[in-house]
Amino acid sequence: MLGNFSYCNETKIYFCDDSLKYLNDELPKYGKNVQLIYGGGSIKKNGIYDAVVDILKKNGKNVIEDAGVMPNPTVEKLNEGVKIARENKVDLLLAVGGGSCCDYAKAVAVSVNCDDDPWQKYFIRFEEPTCKILPVGCILTMAGTGSEMNGGAVISNHATNQKIGHVFGAEVMPKFSILNPKFTFSLPKRQMVAGIYDIFNHICEQYFSGTDDNTSDYLAEALMKSVIHSSLIAVENPEDYEARSNIMWSATWALNTLIAKGKTTDWMVHMLGQAVGAYTDATHGMTLAAVSLPYYRYIMPYGLAKFKRFATEVWSIDAKGKSDEQVAEEGLQTMENWMKKIGLTMNISELGATADMIEGIADKTFILTGGYKVLNRDEIINILKASL
Amino acid sequence: MLGNFSYCNETKIYFCDDSLKYLNDELPKYGKNVQLIYGGGSIKKNGIYDAVVDILKKNGKNVIEDAGVMPNPTVEKLNEGVKIARENKVDLLLAVGGGSCCDYAKAVAVSVNCDDDPWQKYFIRFEEPTCKILPVGCILTMAGTGSEMNGGAVISNHATNQKIGHVFGAEVMPKFSILNPKFTFSLPKRQMVAGIYDIFNHICEQYFSGTDDNTSDYLAEALMKSVIHSSLIAVENPEDYEARSNIMWSATWALNTLIAKGKTTDWMVHMLGQAVGAYTDATHGMTLAAVSLPYYRYIMPYGLAKFKRFATEVWSIDAKGKSDEQVAEEGLQTMENWMKKIGLTMNISELGATADMIEGIADKTFILTGGYKVLNRDEIINILKASL
Repeated sequence: MLGNFSYCNETKIYFCDDSLKYLNDELPKYGKNVQLIYGGGSIKKNGIYDAVVDILKKNGKNVIEDAGVMPNPTVEKLNEGVKIARENKVDLLLAVGGGSCCDYAKAVAVSVNCDDDPWQKYFIRFEEPTCKILPVGCILTMAGTGSEMNGGAVISNHATNQKIGHVFGAEVMPKFSILNPKFTFSLPKRQMVAGIYDIFNHICEQYFSGTDDNTSDYLAEALMKSVIHSSLIAVENPEDYEARSNIMWSATWALNTLIAKGKTTDWMVHMLGQAVGAYTDATHGMTLAAVSLPYYRYIMPYGLAKFKRFATEVWSIDAKGKSDEQVAEEGLQTMENWMKKIGLTMNISELGATADMIEGIADKTFILTGGYKVLNRDEIINILKASL
Repeated sequence: MLGNFSYCNETKIYFCDDSLKYLNDELPKYGKNVQLIYGGGSIKKNGIYDAVVDILKKNGKNVIEDAGVMPNPTVEKLNEGVKIARENKVDLLLAVGGGSCCDYAKAVAVSVNCDDDPWQKYFIRFEEPTCKILPVGCILTMAGTGSEMNGGAVISNHATNQKIGHVFGAEVMPKFSILNPKFTFSLPKRQMVAGIYDIFNHICEQYFSGTDDNTSDYLAEALMKSVIHSSLIAVENPEDYEARSNIMWSATWALNTLIAKGKTTDWMVHMLGQAVGAYTDATHGMTLAAVSLPYYRYIMPYGLAKFKRFATEVWSIDAKGKSDEQVAEEGLQTMENWMKKIGLTMNISELGATADMIEGIADKTFILTGGYKVLNRDEIINILKASL
């Protein structure tokens, strides 16, 4: 733990099988106009929409509808949300859904009182908000992104084939998030496992960097082990409350800044996956899964000690009598077996990527420098080809 | 993860080898009168006192001295601190020291605007604050209690041989805490290892309870492993920044509510240790160390599966070909070896306890019900005798 940092996370979490009732405790803190943000309407089928609107009405709120947030929220949708918030003098942005809804709410929150074009300001120029930020609340129906307790927002621009994330500071984090593992029960299995891999990879991205010994990496290993363990139960029985609750809580802590404290981080799998997503609009977690092993196998020699530790600590590989390379490769092989077992998509061609897109995807891949090997364009192309 | 919970921790942490400068960022948020709380004066020898006062003066604050907070803060001292705060219309309680100073500051914070007797209200009747709570800031010079990011306060009453803790809610947690691992370098080795065991036992108290599979227990194992690893480095080289920083950060997370979320907890080692402390005024961490193994060996059969997991996951015991009891006992034996190696006091007679005190200590031991075996008085006496 050599790095310097500050830590502050004020998001209040309500976590239980009946947590929606706590919305009644939060609503009185905010003004009358609530922008209700949700996606394709699954919350109307499972009753969550009615329950939320009922609580909003009982608390005397004006409900301003903002439906149709897509899995990868677009610039156009962001601009629409900003317009809704401005026209209705919104006091609270209430996202009901998964990470996309929550990300989108945060992107709207920093843009409503801002004259600049949000895409240019936050996702091209990476500026920080200088205007009044609207408060965001989140009712989570899918575990994965950790957006419920962080300041991150990822927005896609299909016109330019870009999918870009901005991690805002503590002031943009949701004021409160309501987590009910039961709300995730009805999620299609493919969405569940994509979320599980998103969680797992968030941890990997923060773990596979640096060589110092620090508490953050121990915590990362703990979260990985809990996710692996519970994922195997959840794919067999999606209504296992204990497994789904562990996955949900691990997702929150996998990306609420804690396990990156005092250390460097990688995030190249996300850069590769997001570039694939910008071309294919594929499910985020699946894009990460499809590029992960080619990437990790390529960088493994540059971070061998950490990959060996990953193998022994996370995957219980017995190191006795084996070379470090053998141990590290056994770890990745065991990870691959787990990924296939839970049903992840293991290559980008199944997600709609084709050989002729590779150059374009490589061009849209941000190159970050925190990992064990700073990739050049040729290396990115080779990794993408190996992911096809 | 079956339990229901809420989570909110607003304490802002500044963590680095030069973190004191961030006091300048916090002071403008509070009024003019700052009660400067510290202990026996070691901060005057190592320069921290002068540096803090300098920053306070530069920020235009009135410094109100409140020195002499003892390792186990007493009721009399608490009443004195409340009087100082009232007479000087204090706006901020700034604790500079270890857990004792920070605990004491929180106990003052909830009492200044309260008409009731604080000892009776908070430590006998366990009531919650109903008056305005003063804000607390903390500059930490010793890792151990986690008081810098929680709502706990332990106060001793020598007249009645009682040492009692009250865990207050989020509103009593420090508003900010400044952590600099270098501030812990000059601590005598005995204080350092007592702090290390305090941290370790905080984790044990939350880990050794319940049989469900939950993320919290994985995180607890991670923190234990990090503490064990770094403790062995720190006892050899107390100025190893990496080891001291890992210990400091693990201490914060060992007791800031996270690893107890969604699960039951034990806390009987603290009940036994605090009763010993009430009789002997011995160093807190050492009282915990001295009663731990007799307690854990006694309750082990009642929580065998967890003690086996503790052995394999935390102490890397190879379970192959061994009974569960053997594995669990090997874990405790390895823990005992580690405790002796870092220099902990392994029995209460070395802390000043005598055979004739046993009955009295047993009478002052709160019996809690969250562990694997609810102890009766005879069992407590047997454990204390085995600890002599």
